[in-house]
Amino acid sequence: MNIRIGIMGYGNLGRGVENAIAQNSDTTLAAVFTRRDPSTLKIQTEGVPVYHADDAVKHKDDIDVLILCGGSATDLPEQTPEFVKYFNVVDSFDTHAKIPEHFDNVDAAAKASGKVGIISVGWDPGMFSLNRLMGNVILVDGKDYTFWGKGVSQGHSDAVRRVEGVKDAKQYTVPVESALESVRNGENPELSTREKHTRVCYVVAEEGADLARIENEIKTMPNYFADYDTTVNFITEEELKRDHSGIPHGGFVIRSGKTGKNGENSHVIEYSLKLDSNPEFTTSVLLAYARAAYRLNEEGVSGAKTVFDIAPAYLSPKSGAELRKELL
Amino acid sequence: MNIRIGIMGYGNLGRGVENAIAQNSDTTLAAVFTRRDPSTLKIQTEGVPVYHADDAVKHKDDIDVLILCGGSATDLPEQTPEFVKYFNVVDSFDTHAKIPEHFDNVDAAAKASGKVGIISVGWDPGMFSLNRLMGNVILVDGKDYTFWGKGVSQGHSDAVRRVEGVKDAKQYTVPVESALESVRNGENPELSTREKHTRVCYVVAEEGADLARIENEIKTMPNYFADYDTTVNFITEEELKRDHSGIPHGGFVIRSGKTGKNGENSHVIEYSLKLDSNPEFTTSVLLAYARAAYRLNEEGVSGAKTVFDIAPAYLSPKSGAELRKELL
Repeated sequence: MNIRIGIMGYGNLGRGVENAIAQNSDTTLAAVFTRRDPSTLKIQTEGVPVYHADDAVKHKDDIDVLILCGGSATDLPEQTPEFVKYFNVVDSFDTHAKIPEHFDNVDAAAKASGKVGIISVGWDPGMFSLNRLMGNVILVDGKDYTFWGKGVSQGHSDAVRRVEGVKDAKQYTVPVESALESVRNGENPELSTREKHTRVCYVVAEEGADLARIENEIKTMPNYFADYDTTVNFITEEELKRDHSGIPHGGFVIRSGKTGKNGENSHVIEYSLKLDSNPEFTTSVLLAYARAAYRLNEEGVSGAKTVFDIAPAYLSPKSGAELRKELL
Repeated sequence: MNIRIGIMGYGNLGRGVENAIAQNSDTTLAAVFTRRDPSTLKIQTEGVPVYHADDAVKHKDDIDVLILCGGSATDLPEQTPEFVKYFNVVDSFDTHAKIPEHFDNVDAAAKASGKVGIISVGWDPGMFSLNRLMGNVILVDGKDYTFWGKGVSQGHSDAVRRVEGVKDAKQYTVPVESALESVRNGENPELSTREKHTRVCYVVAEEGADLARIENEIKTMPNYFADYDTTVNFITEEELKRDHSGIPHGGFVIRSGKTGKNGENSHVIEYSLKLDSNPEFTTSVLLAYARAAYRLNEEGVSGAKTVFDIAPAYLSPKSGAELRKELL
């Protein structure tokens, strides 16, 4: 029988999960839950019910894993500990500093209910975390580097949009190529914030706005831009729509380290992602971990888990024997 | 108490494990076992006993994990199922086609003895396998590529040395840059053997040998070179020693795939290694998995395992809480 997936929240992530389910023949979309009026929500998959989020628990017996597609700021800190009382859940909680607290909240609720809650799944946290861990355990005497981009940062785009006179905007985070090269060459550079990433903004200004002031306000904005070399490009609304409507992202996790009696041998491990759609990649990871949540719970496991706690074989629909034959 | 490691076989891998133990403060080298006369073997670590391989079982209570540093052709198919009767073991068995059989042999013996045997650990099989698996489960509608090099192939170097008139030789496997670029660009090319890798040989010829004949024999050698574009460089013995005495290797695992309702978004996951010392990197991986073997066995687990079966947290000496705080 297929793994019955529920989607909580039908934004970019929710739609991404729906698409991922269509690619994974051992999973079925069982229901979508929304805080909007369900009758107004049209989903892609034929014949799948849409319910109000408040009614989710009524459908707990029809769902093997509920994938939580809300935001990390306010949704997930509430939703994950709550829904894991009734469902196996997976979330993409990505506020790094609050992960320990979130884990503990989910763990307590999940152990009480006997369910599995896998938190902080995606690419960072997620696949990048996994590569940081592997790099650290293999090259013990080494140094970690994480670069993000080239990609759209939602938070920074929002910050630009809040500047007076800005009608719309997109912000790209771009890794500095020379810094990447130095890291790849095993030079172990100490890199400042400014030396690792640049920020590039595409801004549609209101008619008659003072462009020089807007540019200056963006470039000097504390936390968001002041510590970076920032480029501001003014473009038309049409250009923004035509050239910058995607949500690409990606990045690099690099570990460089030394081995040998006197550290005489250098090694570089590099993991990189180049993604056309940040949310669709994230949800593809979420669905693989939903499979793991289901199988672990079937084996009697409960509690909060992260990507660190899941043996990779649980992510694949293939048997251990198939995996060893085909992929080892 | 530290994890007490035994090393079976003191060649390049055995010495690599010894160096890795010095970098990992939760591990201790307990003993080295050799098929040579133990009294003739001088190891780097002070005060550690060297015993004959035949006496290993006598020391089973002094060793938590025995790392098997023999070859895949004849040593490991015998040693791993035999020693797992008495020890938790880790090996780097790398004959891909025979992994299923080796796994079954080790699994039966390990389940009978209550020990853990982790097989096929290293980078390929090992880290590359892990990345193939992760790529497959995330980008379901996609294509895998593995490139090796630039690095020294022992088997191909040996093949060149067997050519009449060749005094010594080193062979490098080199990925074709244009093929790598095409894969990275998400073009999903169909690549022949010749299109993926070239082979570069550095050959020291016997005095008076017919260089044209040697070059031709190498380039037309079935299985090893005939299907590749091969370059043969004749150099002096001094040059070979000066420029080609290292054992570098590395490679790339790339998964490219599509997501979205109509496959409209492309993604590329790339994992790459650039290694000064193939055996030292391999043994750094082996030691991390030895830690996992020990901890799993402490929890009561037994049987054969591969990198697919080990949750990443088992590889690190850090607690789950530390890992979530520092690396997630």
